Amino acid sequence: MLAALILASVAGLASNAHSVEPPAKPVTMQQVLEASKPSDWRRPDPNDTLYLDLPGGRVVIELAPAFAPLHSANIRTLVRARYFDGLAILRVQDNFVTQWGDPDAEDPAKARPFGQARRTVAPEFERAIAPNLPFTRLPDGDVYAAEVGFSHWMPAARDPQAGKTWLAHCYGMVGAGRDNGVDSGSGAELYVVIGQEPRQLDRNIALVGRVVQGMELLASLPRGTGPLGFYEKPDQRLPIKSVRLAADVPQAERTPLELLRTDTSTFTALIESRRNRRDDWYKVPAGKISLCNVPLPVRKPPAQAR
Amino acid sequence: MLAALILASVAGLASNAHSVEPPAKPVTMQQVLEASKPSDWRRPDPNDTLYLDLPGGRVVIELAPAFAPLHSANIRTLVRARYFDGLAILRVQDNFVTQWGDPDAEDPAKARPFGQARRTVAPEFERAIAPNLPFTRLPDGDVYAAEVGFSHWMPAARDPQAGKTWLAHCYGMVGAGRDNGVDSGSGAELYVVIGQEPRQLDRNIALVGRVVQGMELLASLPRGTGPLGFYEKPDQRLPIKSVRLAADVPQAERTPLELLRTDTSTFTALIESRRNRRDDWYKVPAGKISLCNVPLPVRKPPAQAR
Repeated sequence: MLAALILASVAGLASNAHSVEPPAKPVTMQQVLEASKPSDWRRPDPNDTLYLDLPGGRVVIELAPAFAPLHSANIRTLVRARYFDGLAILRVQDNFVTQWGDPDAEDPAKARPFGQARRTVAPEFERAIAPNLPFTRLPDGDVYAAEVGFSHWMPAARDPQAGKTWLAHCYGMVGAGRDNGVDSGSGAELYVVIGQEPRQLDRNIALVGRVVQGMELLASLPRGTGPLGFYEKPDQRLPIKSVRLAADVPQAERTPLELLRTDTSTFTALIESRRNRRDDWYKVPAGKISLCNVPLPVRKPPAQAR
Repeated sequence: MLAALILASVAGLASNAHSVEPPAKPVTMQQVLEASKPSDWRRPDPNDTLYLDLPGGRVVIELAPAFAPLHSANIRTLVRARYFDGLAILRVQDNFVTQWGDPDAEDPAKARPFGQARRTVAPEFERAIAPNLPFTRLPDGDVYAAEVGFSHWMPAARDPQAGKTWLAHCYGMVGAGRDNGVDSGSGAELYVVIGQEPRQLDRNIALVGRVVQGMELLASLPRGTGPLGFYEKPDQRLPIKSVRLAADVPQAERTPLELLRTDTSTFTALIESRRNRRDDWYKVPAGKISLCNVPLPVRKPPAQAR
């Protein structure tokens, strides 16, 4: 009852939350999305959008320059130099990550040149809490961090005492692989989370963005049988056709999509619809939702708006 | 320092936790496992072990009769009648579940007969807390439940106020699909979790066991493109060669394996080794670990013990 009232109030679906009438009918995620306004949605900046084109189709990645500006800039430089074209997916470790880059990165004679890109980038594992990193807090709690929520439309965490904030390793988040040195990552080798949230990686490596479409192409690959899930034979690797910035692709070849904003009452209502499922199947509403279980909806732009 | 002392004490790796000497060298999971004793390991009961044989190899599932006795019994009956042989994997929904059963289950003319098995089984979504359901609590907290930990070697949760306990939907957990009716499941259609923990399913459906080997075979399948990830065309389904109880398979065809017990000081040390990683790569130990991130190690039995 309380949850329904909060929801109705937040979602604006009841005209008066103090009414003595019964609370508005509880809503499902689909109903929340159907009731959303055009202003609840955003289109990612083409300069922050990567197309990873694989034999099976396109993966769309949105970069997170607010959290990883140096890595994002270096990735743009690499992409514009066509660094990734013809490289490969090298590693698929079950319930952990899929990773791609240069199979010959360790061999100076064969490694692909970096051109104008930097070979190492300063660590961007966390940032100071600041006004340019707004934070919509999720009130449900978290095992790993004092506060969790969403910042720049991605799952994030904060430690107010330390004054730090960082992106969180949820399914679909993309990071820049590194060796033992904290500045040994560059964005030339990237990974995506394909299993249970490996939150122990938080604050230890730079997350640079999120897959917003095409996760199934990266999550359904055969697992590598070598240590850490690396493919043992070159012909097991999946070749990368190309990686492009959306801004560099002709309009007709772009993948139009819109993402639900995470700082709106619609998003709050969506979270509530998932915290306490209301379809006929669920018998015991969970009452809570963990950060990485909050869906971040993506849609094709409505026809009239194209 | 504190963590290292607790670990050394728990793992028995320091002779005296009150020593003024520096704490024992922090250990990795590999070191914990190498220091384990034979008694830290157990072999699953062949009467509770299923072999799901697919074209790509064998998946080994351990049933959880302590939590789902009726479902376990019905699954054994179905398996012994070879109900599953020649059926198929029907559904793979990205970041959610892989599901298998009878493609013609809804068609009375074509559905495979149940024989002596029951078509519906009473719900076993949770159980009363009782001495036969011992619980090793994980002190790190949880978003969804008052208490989480391990019971009968599987991830579990408890609500002491309600006096209830239940298995938790972590990666690799196996459940019995059902329709809207709480008793509409039978074990004839099973699913396994292949993504971020769908903990909202807890207490809403019967978990019947856990995949202990071969998860990569179920997690790397092409995602279905129909609603809920069902395959749209019959030829997209992956055929099931057979499902057998290990007890019914000749010794030479069984898959020997041992699982780490979850009620030992070795398991406590293992959790600590994962809560605070100590290899050269990690810079900021997480300090906490969530239930579904705790590894449940499996090994081939040592040669001398076979």
